[in-house]
Amino acid sequence: MNMEELARRVKEASLKLAAADTALKNRALAAIAASLSDREEEIIRANREDLERSEREKLPAPLLKRLKFDEAKLAEAVDGINSLIGLEDPVGKTLLATELDDGLELYKVTCPIGVIGVIFESRPDALVQIATLCLKSGNGVLLKGGSEARETNRILADLIIEAAARAGVPANWAALLETRAAVNEMLQLDRYIDLVIPRGSNEFVRYIMDHSRIPVLGHADGICHCYVDEDADLEMTLRVVADAKTQYVAVCNALETLLVHERIAPALLPPLKQALEAKQVTLIGCPQTLQIIPAEPASEEDWRTEYLDYKLSIKIVGGLDEAIDHINSYGSGHTDSIITADREKAMRFMDYVDSGNVFWNCSTRFSDGFRYGFGAEVGISTGKIHSRGPVGLDGLVIYKYRLLGSGHVVDDYASRRKTFKHRKLDRSRG
Amino acid sequence: MNMEELARRVKEASLKLAAADTALKNRALAAIAASLSDREEEIIRANREDLERSEREKLPAPLLKRLKFDEAKLAEAVDGINSLIGLEDPVGKTLLATELDDGLELYKVTCPIGVIGVIFESRPDALVQIATLCLKSGNGVLLKGGSEARETNRILADLIIEAAARAGVPANWAALLETRAAVNEMLQLDRYIDLVIPRGSNEFVRYIMDHSRIPVLGHADGICHCYVDEDADLEMTLRVVADAKTQYVAVCNALETLLVHERIAPALLPPLKQALEAKQVTLIGCPQTLQIIPAEPASEEDWRTEYLDYKLSIKIVGGLDEAIDHINSYGSGHTDSIITADREKAMRFMDYVDSGNVFWNCSTRFSDGFRYGFGAEVGISTGKIHSRGPVGLDGLVIYKYRLLGSGHVVDDYASRRKTFKHRKLDRSRG
Repeated sequence: MNMEELARRVKEASLKLAAADTALKNRALAAIAASLSDREEEIIRANREDLERSEREKLPAPLLKRLKFDEAKLAEAVDGINSLIGLEDPVGKTLLATELDDGLELYKVTCPIGVIGVIFESRPDALVQIATLCLKSGNGVLLKGGSEARETNRILADLIIEAAARAGVPANWAALLETRAAVNEMLQLDRYIDLVIPRGSNEFVRYIMDHSRIPVLGHADGICHCYVDEDADLEMTLRVVADAKTQYVAVCNALETLLVHERIAPALLPPLKQALEAKQVTLIGCPQTLQIIPAEPASEEDWRTEYLDYKLSIKIVGGLDEAIDHINSYGSGHTDSIITADREKAMRFMDYVDSGNVFWNCSTRFSDGFRYGFGAEVGISTGKIHSRGPVGLDGLVIYKYRLLGSGHVVDDYASRRKTFKHRKLDRSRG
Repeated sequence: MNMEELARRVKEASLKLAAADTALKNRALAAIAASLSDREEEIIRANREDLERSEREKLPAPLLKRLKFDEAKLAEAVDGINSLIGLEDPVGKTLLATELDDGLELYKVTCPIGVIGVIFESRPDALVQIATLCLKSGNGVLLKGGSEARETNRILADLIIEAAARAGVPANWAALLETRAAVNEMLQLDRYIDLVIPRGSNEFVRYIMDHSRIPVLGHADGICHCYVDEDADLEMTLRVVADAKTQYVAVCNALETLLVHERIAPALLPPLKQALEAKQVTLIGCPQTLQIIPAEPASEEDWRTEYLDYKLSIKIVGGLDEAIDHINSYGSGHTDSIITADREKAMRFMDYVDSGNVFWNCSTRFSDGFRYGFGAEVGISTGKIHSRGPVGLDGLVIYKYRLLGSGHVVDDYASRRKTFKHRKLDRSRG
């Protein structure tokens, strides 16, 4: 089947899935969870094939680790589905209810977006997570995983589609793409696909954004900042900065640039250097920083760089407003934090920093759908349209306006025979 | 000043405006309303210049009518601003509040989108409406109006920017663009502009969508349908269809295609023809329609055409599901209605038709921000991301996550020394 026909079928099924009730979707999720457990051996065998081939092809160790889908990962995936079943259905919520006039009632009701194209990295658990999030939110989905994981992805996708169909979900609501060419074709199908979620490297996300009319939800850079104010507690700063930088360096919410108030720099930087160097972090500093501690000299480019590595750039600033300006100029709108004892300054920072996630006295690493309590996430968005920050079920729905009348015509209002009442209705009536 | 520098300044001001409180924004709106009234004579003089020049340049009469900005239009604009002052501030609303753990509180709070580029038609009242909506929602705005209205736009923009600045709004939050070249430059400035709202012809909207990485909110086609079910009341159908088709033909929510259940067609079509022809409507029918009433034969192209004229295409269908399929295939996702006495069928129609506005027993012409009670609208969106249907103040905001801790680090949770609690908090605490 060609890509356009595949997308058309997913679209068609998605229109039916949009009207599926919560019970049906939850039954399908339960069937998927059961099927994952039942076919554990097969799945692990497929994954072993992927692992062996990838080892032969010299895939780097961290990627091999992400590719692995063993008993523990499978149990986690099943747990994830069970908690998804427990989450509220994001579809069918009445956001607004207004009686425009006697017998003319307007309801703004959430509904699925439609068809979502997701391109994800080599972790096979991402496939399970994304497919089940789309199912719970009533969306059709085109899934494209890393080619390293092709055997695992194939069995997982087959099993999910089969189990959902057995529970009564419209066939074709999900499909697996297997080639890069299919992705390129998908990007042209704005007629059938409503949203693309690319997960992966900066270059990859930018490529997707530049090659499609379809809206893109995601993030390219994650250049996260921490600003240490003159009022910061030193011990807290050392702990939070070390966590933000080193707890996991290869992720988008890891700290990349530290901004330090000039008055606290002499006291902070020496112990900070000691603490971070103990964790193998290389420091890259502005000229003022270099006057206090030895470090590599920073270039203009460093302030725009997402290292994703054991590296931290440090800049000394004159105060809060300079820190805010630096973040709004060089940041990527992902996650930025302030450490200060002064509540008013913290609020000012959080008001003026134009990022999806603004934090006070805690690590940037908290910026994550699970930690936020969303149950799961399809990605993190640095866009300012639709969804921002970690995106869970709520980010996969939009709404439609339903207007219920009894023969009402506009001419009665245009000619002033009738006037609108715009009375708020109880939203539970929707 | 070049366009990039202009956009950069608006962006900078918008970051400050984002944190402005409701009182300041409302004071600025009141100052704008007062200034409009004070300078009535000057404004009307500028508009007379535009009208005279446009008459000499043989602008068609309907466009001249839209260009006119007289005492009555000015009074309406002032009324509009006063009602906008009364509307709730869309910024700073807490959408979600969760205690992630002791002393670690997450708030999801609405905030402005940033900088919005609006390109609007020749009506000068659109400038006032859009600028004041952006101000109330805390957004910076680049305004580009029709060149016919250049003198009127210039004085209105000057006066609005001046009055807002006097009230204390950051200078540069708004700017007027005057050339088509400026629009093209604007479309490249995704670094500074967060959303583009084009109002105008299909071709124009599509051009914008194809020439920018900036997200676009708006609609190209408005191919609105009405499906008349076998259970429809005939008298109601005649009234609603006449209103939807003829109350104002040149607008996006006017009816373009009528779908008729085959069982009601013989009874409906003859009186419908009589009623619509009395209003000068030309009928264009499918082969089955032509067997019942004389009409022009419809081609495949007719089902995809937005006439914006006294023309209506008519298709006879076998029932509800065929009507839904037709609408989802040929429609534009704008506004579609069903006329039926059967509530269950109406609900099925509204569930399965994938449009921003789905109506039961009323005219498609109700699809409008004022009629919906939003106070004002910046446009109508047929996109499925962010905002759908008529877009008022709520469509001009997004949110940010604010996380307040006291030294919390992720490593405590990753190593299971601590666990998340995810307790719902009272949203009023945000």
